[in-house]
Amino acid sequence: MKFATLQHRGRAQPCVVDAESKLFWPISEMVAGFHGDMNQLVHDYQKIKDQLDISAPGRDLRGATILAPIPRPRRNIFCVGRNYHAHAKELAASVFKDNDKNAQSWPIVFTKVPECVIGPSDRVALPGEISGQIDYEAELAIIIGKGGKNISRHAAMDHVFGYTIVNDVTARDVQMRHQQWDMGKSFDTFCPMGPWIVTSDELDGSNTRVRCWVNGELRQDGATPDLIFDLPALIETCSRGITLFPGDIIATGTPAGVGMGMNPPQYLKNGDVVRIEIDGIGVLENTFN
Amino acid sequence: MKFATLQHRGRAQPCVVDAESKLFWPISEMVAGFHGDMNQLVHDYQKIKDQLDISAPGRDLRGATILAPIPRPRRNIFCVGRNYHAHAKELAASVFKDNDKNAQSWPIVFTKVPECVIGPSDRVALPGEISGQIDYEAELAIIIGKGGKNISRHAAMDHVFGYTIVNDVTARDVQMRHQQWDMGKSFDTFCPMGPWIVTSDELDGSNTRVRCWVNGELRQDGATPDLIFDLPALIETCSRGITLFPGDIIATGTPAGVGMGMNPPQYLKNGDVVRIEIDGIGVLENTFN
Repeated sequence: MKFATLQHRGRAQPCVVDAESKLFWPISEMVAGFHGDMNQLVHDYQKIKDQLDISAPGRDLRGATILAPIPRPRRNIFCVGRNYHAHAKELAASVFKDNDKNAQSWPIVFTKVPECVIGPSDRVALPGEISGQIDYEAELAIIIGKGGKNISRHAAMDHVFGYTIVNDVTARDVQMRHQQWDMGKSFDTFCPMGPWIVTSDELDGSNTRVRCWVNGELRQDGATPDLIFDLPALIETCSRGITLFPGDIIATGTPAGVGMGMNPPQYLKNGDVVRIEIDGIGVLENTFN
Repeated sequence: MKFATLQHRGRAQPCVVDAESKLFWPISEMVAGFHGDMNQLVHDYQKIKDQLDISAPGRDLRGATILAPIPRPRRNIFCVGRNYHAHAKELAASVFKDNDKNAQSWPIVFTKVPECVIGPSDRVALPGEISGQIDYEAELAIIIGKGGKNISRHAAMDHVFGYTIVNDVTARDVQMRHQQWDMGKSFDTFCPMGPWIVTSDELDGSNTRVRCWVNGELRQDGATPDLIFDLPALIETCSRGITLFPGDIIATGTPAGVGMGMNPPQYLKNGDVVRIEIDGIGVLENTFN
């Protein structure tokens, strides 16, 4: 099943979406007494899922605006760095020369502030004089359904509600100069997300393809079997000593082909369009200006 | 003025506190229609501050439980690494040998998840087998009052609501092995905070003393004039491209004397008591077990 947050009749609300027929059904019209947002839906899902009956006529998706599926995450988004074999290789050849000896032992986890999330129709604001090194990172994001702490690799996939796409937009110079990456990853508008969440019964996140185009040119073409740390390992890592909650988001890292890894580096400029497609989810496309 | 969140008559509520007379006044009894938490108080402060009349008899502080002043921050806490001259020196001599060439150019900023905050009466849970390298970091924390983006150094102090104490508890091995620090800083219970917020008109955060004792032994004794990046610089940094909001928290870094810097390193063990005192604020004391 696909869940989107749609701006419809003056308010943002979570809805079931049929991407093929381009129809949607607001949750509030199927579940009596439900007035919550997507975080609430994820939290209540096991309780309400049997009431999600889409046999009634759907509404036309073209009459609504698709927002980020979780427009305001409950806390910073967990993000994983350098997590595809080919991407680790391109970075080792450029900026991380001195610093890759531990790369294969433990995942690198940093965060993005929740307020930098924007939707598929929104523009990413280039930050002008603050940074001229703005880069894209196409990523599969896990949406946690069932919370927990010290979740084992074996049980990890039971905690997944579903998946969406994020663009982990990055100011490379800011990322590097602060040593810790959170600042260069958290500029306003730096987390396009969407178009919707696909539940884990409908998509095998461990085996899907992640592609990214800049102005129509294919730049990234990876697949999640190439992850250095797979999805269970990431959930195990993020929950180690730290309680995860329903609605938490883990962005799983980006394949090779970022602008920083090109020779010479190609950073984003005014008017550039970044299109990300993940098989089984859909397309997230945003203009930068 | 001092503001605490107190558990009183079955609910947590923000209150004015007089630390000397040990009296308190719930905000909800002074401001008609106010039912919010500390985040709401910080947000509304300019509008309601004239109504904070403590001429009425106060209640006895000993009849209430002091919680963290902001029990649930609105997003991850911004934290600053290696920000006292003497502490940078002790680290350069131990774990950061290869990695300090940029230390003086830009602040290091990472985050702690909001749910790891605990109050002055709570215990820090040692994480057992996950890490045996648990360390304390006594820190002055800025509470942002007025939000903003690209705040200049010149205007920065106008955005400060007040100050509190945090213990930036850290699992050193976890901090290091993930390269990015957020995981090793975010274990459940790893952010003792309190006992209250002192407003910026009552305390000059740029000139106060920060001390920390472990089981009565003085380990850290620093003062904020020794900060490498001062308070205006930190606010300027955290707001660069990133909108800050009322209630955001910036932990400003810790003085020399952490357990990791000792020879041999001294990590916290079951039953240890860490007491932090910041002049003009008070004492934050927590047991580890």
